[in-house]
Amino acid sequence: MNKKGILIVICGPSGVGKGTICKKFLTKNTDIKLSISATTRSPRAGEEHGVSYYFLDAQKFEDMIEKDEFLEYARVYDNGYGTPKKAVFENLEKGEDVLLEIDIQGAMQVKEKYPDGVFIFILPPSLEELKNRIVKRGSETEESFKKRFGSAFSEISKIENFDYYLVNNDLDKAVGQLESIIMAEKNRVSRYKDCILKKFEEEL
Amino acid sequence: MNKKGILIVICGPSGVGKGTICKKFLTKNTDIKLSISATTRSPRAGEEHGVSYYFLDAQKFEDMIEKDEFLEYARVYDNGYGTPKKAVFENLEKGEDVLLEIDIQGAMQVKEKYPDGVFIFILPPSLEELKNRIVKRGSETEESFKKRFGSAFSEISKIENFDYYLVNNDLDKAVGQLESIIMAEKNRVSRYKDCILKKFEEEL
Repeated sequence: MNKKGILIVICGPSGVGKGTICKKFLTKNTDIKLSISATTRSPRAGEEHGVSYYFLDAQKFEDMIEKDEFLEYARVYDNGYGTPKKAVFENLEKGEDVLLEIDIQGAMQVKEKYPDGVFIFILPPSLEELKNRIVKRGSETEESFKKRFGSAFSEISKIENFDYYLVNNDLDKAVGQLESIIMAEKNRVSRYKDCILKKFEEEL
Repeated sequence: MNKKGILIVICGPSGVGKGTICKKFLTKNTDIKLSISATTRSPRAGEEHGVSYYFLDAQKFEDMIEKDEFLEYARVYDNGYGTPKKAVFENLEKGEDVLLEIDIQGAMQVKEKYPDGVFIFILPPSLEELKNRIVKRGSETEESFKKRFGSAFSEISKIENFDYYLVNNDLDKAVGQLESIIMAEKNRVSRYKDCILKKFEEEL
């Protein structure tokens, strides 16, 4: 059976530990491709084009929006960020799974354009614990803390738009659950029904 | 979060190895309850009431149909077989997962009465291999072989009514995939959305 890859979309409130889960998951599952975003902001020290981001100028970014070449995009202050469709779709067609770590607004745009994605929301063990984690990062001003933490509950209330949730209590457990979700999706009838029936029809 | 258990419905053509997969799965996952069927046929040597089957007389069986006390039932020649709702639902309410190994007609009845079940179809690696397995059992007459094998493709073509499929090529792999499916379902948002939102609302 020639199977299409799965688009895995990981989302969750700021500070919940999405990045840590994704990193460990990708280290253990090296066949899964991480999607690389495009941005108009300047590269920071150590950032490489095509590795950290695709660095684009503003004109190219606007052109890509115009041509519907983004799976999702956003403008944050003066900078544009987006996920180019091309690389993602090429990998999926080749049967490779692609992971997208993204914010909720982005995830909702992806869902509209590619509902076959698997949409996963990472939850904190509690709001109290989320607060502690944001504070521990230490990089937050009072204002940005309030902004991040204030939006956490409203983000969680959008969970009904997602297929799965994970509670980030124990990292290994969360990564194991993520692996199970992907394995289960590879056994989902609606995804591969045509392949299955074709295979058995050919035998008749 | 006080979570309801999951009803796991396992189905597949005759000879595919459902029983072997279920047995190994239950041995490894002792917290999962196997549903016990009711039947009007007489106990065979070694069969125990409440363990192998609930043995009922024909009148009691008809009464239970009348009172809609079966999740599914069928009459095969002179005997009745069915899955009593009560024990299944009591376990699910207690948060315990219940496994039901059943034929396709039965699975479709269960789906109608309890669409929250997880419906899993076991596929053979190929029709040729299924044929070999039925022959190897050796217990088949020519006629019963034709009947069993003849219905295999028409059963497989009903796979679209199922949530997941498993290919029974390698027993351990199939059992591992079954475990992943159940773990994934325990992280499904649509199943536990209300619990999740309630938990975080209480913290506000």
